[in-house]
Amino acid sequence: MDAILDAALVSHVGFALERPFVIPMIHARDGDTLYLHGSPGSRLLRTLERGADVCVTATVIDGIVFARSLFHHSLNYRSAVVLGRARLVSDDEEKLRALNAVAEHVMPGRAGDTRDPSPNELLATKVIAVAIGEASAKIRTGPPIDDEDDLGLPFWAGVVPLRTTAGEPEALDPSLPIPDYIRRISG
Amino acid sequence: MDAILDAALVSHVGFALERPFVIPMIHARDGDTLYLHGSPGSRLLRTLERGADVCVTATVIDGIVFARSLFHHSLNYRSAVVLGRARLVSDDEEKLRALNAVAEHVMPGRAGDTRDPSPNELLATKVIAVAIGEASAKIRTGPPIDDEDDLGLPFWAGVVPLRTTAGEPEALDPSLPIPDYIRRISG
Repeated sequence: MDAILDAALVSHVGFALERPFVIPMIHARDGDTLYLHGSPGSRLLRTLERGADVCVTATVIDGIVFARSLFHHSLNYRSAVVLGRARLVSDDEEKLRALNAVAEHVMPGRAGDTRDPSPNELLATKVIAVAIGEASAKIRTGPPIDDEDDLGLPFWAGVVPLRTTAGEPEALDPSLPIPDYIRRISG
Repeated sequence: MDAILDAALVSHVGFALERPFVIPMIHARDGDTLYLHGSPGSRLLRTLERGADVCVTATVIDGIVFARSLFHHSLNYRSAVVLGRARLVSDDEEKLRALNAVAEHVMPGRAGDTRDPSPNELLATKVIAVAIGEASAKIRTGPPIDDEDDLGLPFWAGVVPLRTTAGEPEALDPSLPIPDYIRRISG
């Protein structure tokens, strides 16, 4: 569960007003808490801060599974579904820790190498915590599982692995050296 | 909007029972209709077939945006949020067309090169249609936008582009040639 949440760059956050909404957000996990953040004006965050029920789903796609029959095609994937209740983070210390966790989640190593948030920027950032309570993970791995009758059919079967890869960093100022933590992202 | 839906391999589908849920699903677009499919036993599909309000959100992450200040870090992304009402597809012809659209969405070219669904397999597949009504797209592109006061800070700034790439196909039977449509996925 934790590994899936940590591996997914973003999650999809579901909440209900008069109807259900799903919004992509960057998340970060700190122990058994998920943190989300955004602009104080965001409808999503204004809903969540009132203690709304929320569903945070993180998915990583690992491959396309080609079976002999269309019916048994599939994806290899890992997904985590977290059900919880949202809570506004009003304590400045927890807020800073949460924002550092978010930075570390997306860009490990960056948090110490950028200008820290000013008091005004902290005011202009809303942070929401979701305690990981009820949660479930689903994983599919491995080759296709075809019906025995289909094994002799002349259709290619197997897996095409998929992953997210980073390209060459596009620097605003090419005279600055590319930090190691960015080189590591770019492989 | 259409381009984002077509580019995202999966979407995240939100619905509300006693509380909100978000589940990853493969979608396909056929004109102004989104199709979802799955097992008849799925709680999600059993909820949707009753005509539930649904939110289908598709997101593509294009890069990590490094600003001089932590506050202005961001992701480059494209996301489409579709609000609609679900409808069970009971007509066999529409069902087959939907399943072919799903196959074509994930694996262009495959649908003609695999065993077609049998009548029993069609019965064991539930297809849901969502008419694309209210919908919105959000896109962020380009470099970081820093405060003017921060432009001289000695922190690397720019974009690390991200994309989904396919690795070498893993064949169950290496004696079968790899079809062109699979070579195209693997670049």
